[in-house]
Formats: sequence, structure tokens, C-alpha cells
Amino acid sequence: MNPVELIRKKRDGFQLTEEEINYLILRYTRGKIPSYQISALLMAGFLNGFDAKETAWLTRSMLYSGKIINLKSVKGKKIDKHSTGGVGDKTSLILAPIVAAAGVNVPMISGRGLGHTGGTLDKLEAIPGFLTNIDLSKYKSILKKCGAVLIGQTKEIAPADKLIYALRDVTATVESIPFITASIMSKKLAEGIDGLVLDVKTGTGAFMKSYDDSAALANSLTNTARAFNKKVITYITDMNQPLGNYIGNWLEVYESIKVLQGEKVDDLLELSLHLSGAMIHLGNKAKSIPQGIEIAKEMISSGKALNKFLEIVKLQGGDTYYLKNLDKYPKSKIHEKIFADKPGYVNKIDSFEIGIASVELGGGRLEMEDKIDPKAGIIFYPKIGMQIKKGDLIAEIFTNKTGAVDHVKKKLSASITITNKKAEPVKLIKSVNTYK
Amino acid sequence: MNPVELIRKKRDGFQLTEEEINYLILRYTRGKIPSYQISALLMAGFLNGFDAKETAWLTRSMLYSGKIINLKSVKGKKIDKHSTGGVGDKTSLILAPIVAAAGVNVPMISGRGLGHTGGTLDKLEAIPGFLTNIDLSKYKSILKKCGAVLIGQTKEIAPADKLIYALRDVTATVESIPFITASIMSKKLAEGIDGLVLDVKTGTGAFMKSYDDSAALANSLTNTARAFNKKVITYITDMNQPLGNYIGNWLEVYESIKVLQGEKVDDLLELSLHLSGAMIHLGNKAKSIPQGIEIAKEMISSGKALNKFLEIVKLQGGDTYYLKNLDKYPKSKIHEKIFADKPGYVNKIDSFEIGIASVELGGGRLEMEDKIDPKAGIIFYPKIGMQIKKGDLIAEIFTNKTGAVDHVKKKLSASITITNKKAEPVKLIKSVNTYK
Repeated sequence: MNPVELIRKKRDGFQLTEEEINYLILRYTRGKIPSYQISALLMAGFLNGFDAKETAWLTRSMLYSGKIINLKSVKGKKIDKHSTGGVGDKTSLILAPIVAAAGVNVPMISGRGLGHTGGTLDKLEAIPGFLTNIDLSKYKSILKKCGAVLIGQTKEIAPADKLIYALRDVTATVESIPFITASIMSKKLAEGIDGLVLDVKTGTGAFMKSYDDSAALANSLTNTARAFNKKVITYITDMNQPLGNYIGNWLEVYESIKVLQGEKVDDLLELSLHLSGAMIHLGNKAKSIPQGIEIAKEMISSGKALNKFLEIVKLQGGDTYYLKNLDKYPKSKIHEKIFADKPGYVNKIDSFEIGIASVELGGGRLEMEDKIDPKAGIIFYPKIGMQIKKGDLIAEIFTNKTGAVDHVKKKLSASITITNKKAEPVKLIKSVNTYK
Repeated sequence: MNPVELIRKKRDGFQLTEEEINYLILRYTRGKIPSYQISALLMAGFLNGFDAKETAWLTRSMLYSGKIINLKSVKGKKIDKHSTGGVGDKTSLILAPIVAAAGVNVPMISGRGLGHTGGTLDKLEAIPGFLTNIDLSKYKSILKKCGAVLIGQTKEIAPADKLIYALRDVTATVESIPFITASIMSKKLAEGIDGLVLDVKTGTGAFMKSYDDSAALANSLTNTARAFNKKVITYITDMNQPLGNYIGNWLEVYESIKVLQGEKVDDLLELSLHLSGAMIHLGNKAKSIPQGIEIAKEMISSGKALNKFLEIVKLQGGDTYYLKNLDKYPKSKIHEKIFADKPGYVNKIDSFEIGIASVELGGGRLEMEDKIDPKAGIIFYPKIGMQIKKGDLIAEIFTNKTGAVDHVKKKLSASITITNKKAEPVKLIKSVNTYK
């Protein structure tokens, strides 16, 4: 096989075979094909597409570029959740302990925040001592002990994805559904899971702004998981406004603990219960999602989920002091409030801008090397459809970056569209599809 | 400016600005942008196109990546010819001395053969001692002395083209009209010429097989030359059969000398006279192409063109002995003849296969590093429309490669389609357009 011929084939709109995709990906991973050839291939694939079969083959070759974790020695079903990313989405922190408390294993390999979205690892690392950089044998032993573990990418998992993602990032070939699918699924399939709950976000704070694009991504992810004989429940959920009210790493841990303590944060609680219920159902501990949701509610009200969270934190080296004493956590130097400058109804929220505002306060990174301030972030109160009076508190910001304050305050005010006309609240859960 | 943003812009089908193209090409040439970004850009450009303005800007930035030769100290007009390449096309060897003898300067920077086509430099180097690797000051002094000079690419000329061509070659982005245009024109414009005659080939032995593709390339080349205020005469000529009868490096020098001696090799003479006439016309030594053709004929019949060729060879270090004693040139070990195995009319000739056959005999290279045997090649007699009897001599092959003989004989026989129905001879000159 000759890389130039394969690039030409994709350039001219033909389907690549499984062997051809394998050849390209595995040889690239071993440094035998130069990146300038793979980047040309990626652009040809970006523009001419990869069909469902090619996407599954791409996923498979990326998956087999590394290790698939063998979790056979861990009793019970292993179910994970993947979200395509949004603003204020801290459901992983809530559902992992709920689902584990309900007797379903949650082996979760997560990512870091990049761009406007936060990352589960960054949030967990706001807890002093919490280790996400854990090797696979310890990963397995923690999972065995407490039924959940949350770690970062290891070098054994889908190394081809790491290389290809880095190349896509610098060649404008990121926003391709087949490539996004292969990147997500190659890592998730490596976890050794039995089933997966997918939460595909749609709206101003999602990578896919339109419902059609989100549905196409949901479809591609689902088909690929099915091609690997995994059970899947696929949600498409609203990301036109931040999920919950807290954005920023410690702030999101804080809000997660509050939910686990029983606080009713409407949208965040609703989605966390749904995703937990779906996972419990896929893990054969409930006959349906609604029954799973009932179990999830019990895990919260009984305190079992919160205890499970503390157990996970301890096993992963974290200090539970601040989790038990939320208000003792170190404070940002700057804490400012933003008030509504006119009355009306919240009609639209640009969640992307809110995510970026949190990054600018120190809560995220625009480049992989950027340092994160775990205390930085935003409490954001408006929800679409809410009535607001002039002077109402709409947001609070926390930062150590004096220079960012004025800019972020303006950005946050500008992110909300307030109209005279009453606006309808958004529907959080747009669709659910189960494939068992 | 950010390369990723510019790749994205082209990926999404937008026009790049002159500044953006300059930025990409010049920084790439200086090693400041990695090749994997340029290859993604090339693929996006291949698939989404570069319009006429972008093509001119690309040409300009590649041109200005190097030196433009200043020929102001050389008296008279400087006119070059460029052919898009074919099989048996040795017109440069014939027209350069004709045009120089007629008082128009011919500063010609040529290429080497690659794939199925020959290269002027390889042909000239079949003459013992002939140097094509000449620096720019000597280039100028030879041009001043005798009105013509034929050299190879120097490192000062369009270095961006060299880098980008090498990258296109390994990323399946060669066959793009805008990129071909910029590659050709950046080098031709660097010669410091006043005008250019373009010979765009069409047919089985050309890079562009269809007339429409050839016309599109002719149009793109012409527009780009016009954007730089150059006078242009653009020919589209037939390449459905080899030009003349001799294919291979020394064999083509031989046939060129024969034409310069006054031999009537129909198609080769016709095209050489036309292109010479057009150059003489562009060089203001004739009021029209037909008048230029008359002058060209005189240059041959008077012996001035042949003398000029010998003068050029001497000035470029070549030994004229074999040019004066054509039959003394060393012979190939193997000389075999191929005869027609059935009677009929020559209906079609696969000139690409004939070009490849010559390469396989040692007359060309498939990789840039391959060694060439100047003696190797083919004499090929059939022309479309010709009547053939069984047993007629159709070709002779010359090679030192014993192993290639049987295969090449089969290939050559298979390259000719003989039918019972009478076939029309092809029209050599399909179109001529003058822009003065």
C-alpha cells in the first residue's frame, strides 16, 4: 500500500477499506508515515466525508493502536457516560457516585477542559490531593473497591487518537463528525465497558450549535458504539444555557456536592438523575430508565451517593475536608457581582461566551499549557424564560486576575438577551434513544 | 495571522487574500510553518479551488520567494516557450536556435523528465559535456553572446515552488490547475522574459487527457501571465501520438538536428515552425505568426538555426562532434524491431504507454533519483490515420536493459489500436490565441 494512493482515493471521494485505514493509522502511530501525509488525508476526509463503516474502522484502528483495559475481574456491569461538552456540565461528578452506589461500576476516563468547556479532571483536581494521573492497575483496584474511578487519559489508551487529535487541532480538521466520533469512541471502548450513555449537547454552549448537527453526531456515535456491540442510550440535551448555576472548577465541585446533599438545582438535578437512571438501567439494576431514576433519587436521599463520592475521593488520594466544609475552601481575591441593567424576560443566553468568560477569569485554558486557578469562575443565575427586574443579581465572578474583571463583566452582561416579550423556558431533554 | 484560521478559510470555500497567501508561502519557505499545515491547505485548495486572483497571488508569492533574473543588460526582446509536456516533444531544441538566429533572445529554464514525459535538460545532457547546471551570471553572459541559453532550475529561482512541488507530490495534490499554473508561471516569470509562448498539450500523451481540461489549464496559464503584464500566445496542440518519431534523449537530439538540417518531419516541423513563428512575432521581429513562420523557415534553410544550435552547445560546454557526426554516437547493446501483426488503419495510440515504455528502456525516470541512459529509447512510426500492412515496421527499441525488452515490445504493440475502418489524421494545432 502507498499512502499517496490512499490520499488520492479519499480525495476523489471513494471509500477506504478497513485494511487501508488500519495501514494509515497504525503506521502513522509508529512514525512510519509523516504527518504531512496524514494531514492531507484528514482534510480530504473532512471535505469528502467518512461513511459509517469507515468511521467504525477508523475507531477500531485508533482503539487497537493501544490497550483495551480488561475489566473481567471486576464483578458486575461496567457502564460509562460521555458528554460532548458544555458549560457548567458537572454531571459526571454527580452520576458517578450515584451509579456506583446503586451497584453498577463506573470506569471513567475523562478529559481536561479546552476552549469554552470545562473538564472533569480539572474539576476533580480542585479537591486538594485528588490524583487523576493513575496507572491502569490502580485504576482497576479502585474500581473493584468502590465501583467508580475517574482518571485521565493514559499513554496506553488509543495513542493514535492523541497524535491525530493534535494534528487535527493545527490543520483545521477538528469539526468533523467522523473524526470526533472516532476520537471519543476509541477512548471509551478502551475502558472495557459493557455499555455507554451518551449525552450529546446542542445549543449556544455546545460544540454543535444546531440540532441537526447534534443529531448527526449522536447518530454517528451511536452507530459506532453499536458496531462494537455496546449497549447505548443516547441523549440529546439542551446547552443553550449553563447547566446549573456554577461554572469553574471548585465552584462545580461545590454545586455537585450540594446536589448530592439533596439540593434541588432544577436542570442539573434533572439531567443527572436521567443520565444516572439510564446508566443504572444499562447496568441491569433497573428495568427501565424511570425505574433507574427512582433508584438514583434514593441514592441521594439516603446519603449513599454522597458517601460514595467521599469514598472515591479518598481512594484517589483526595482530601475530603473541604467537601465536608464547603465554605472553608480558599477564596479568590476578587469577588464581584453583576446586576441586570434593564427589566424583562431572558430570551437568549450565549453560553459559549460565558464559558470563555470563565476561562478568562482563570478557570480554564485556551492552550493546553495554560495554568488553571481552581477557585476562579462564575455563578450565573439567569435561565431562559426567567423574568428579571432591573438591579437583580445576575452573576457573581471569582478571580485573582484584576485585569480580566471589567472585560468579563461586560461579556457576561452582553451574553444575555433580555426582551419585553415573555420567552418560553427551554426543554432540557430533547431526545432519548435506547439500544440494548 | 494564524495558519489554522487560513486553512479553515480555504476549507470552508472562501477566497484567501493576497496577504494571506504571501504569509503562508513565504513563512513556509523559511521553515516557519510546518509542512503538515501546508499539506492540509493544499488539499483544501485542491478540493475547493483557487480562483484566478488567488492563482495569480500564489504565483506571485512563489515567484518572490526567490530571485527574478534581471535581463535589462541583454539587448532585444526575451521570449520563452513552455510546454505542459508530452511524448517525443523536442521542440525546445529546435525552436531555441531558430528564434535566437532570428534575433530574439531565448532565456530558457527547463525541467527534467519525470513519469512518461521527457525533459529538455535530460535531452541536452545526452550531448557529451553539455552543462545545464549553470549559474545566473554565466546564464546571462551566454544569452548575451548567442541569444539563447538552456539551463536547469537554480536554487535562486522560486524556492517555494520546489518545496511545494515536493509536498504536492507526496500528498496527492499534483493535478490541480491552480497549483500547476503557479508552479509553471512562478519559474517562467523569474526568467525576466517579455513574453511567453504556451504549448498546452491535450490527448493520451498529455497530463490533461481531455480537451476541456487542457483548455482550462491554457486559460489559467494565460490569465496568470496576463496578470503579470506578459505578452502571451497560447497554443493547444494534439498529444494523442508522439511528436515526430524519436523518443529518448539522444534519439530526440538526433531528430532535432535532422529537422534543423532541413528534414521534413511533418508534425514535429509544423509545431516547431509555429511555436518559433509565434516567439519571433512576440519578439517584434515579425508582424504576425505566419510572417514569423516564414522567418523560421529561412533560419532552417539558410543553416543559421543549425549553426546557432552548435554555438549554444559549445558555449554550454558541449562537444559538437556527435552533432556533426550523428551516426558515430555510441549504440545501445540491444536494438530490436517491432512489426505490425495485422493490417488496417491506426485508429488510436496510447502515447502515455509509449512514454512509459521509453522510461522502462532506461530513457527516463520514475523516481527523481533514477539514472538515465541517454542512448535508450524508441523510434515509433505509426501516426493516427496511417494505413498499415501486416509485417510493416512499426517501432524500433534501443536499450541496455535485457530484462525490459519483451515487456516493452508487448506494451508498444498494445499501445496501437488498428481497425479496419479508415481513421482521420489528427489536427495538430487545436487553437491559437494571441495576447499582445
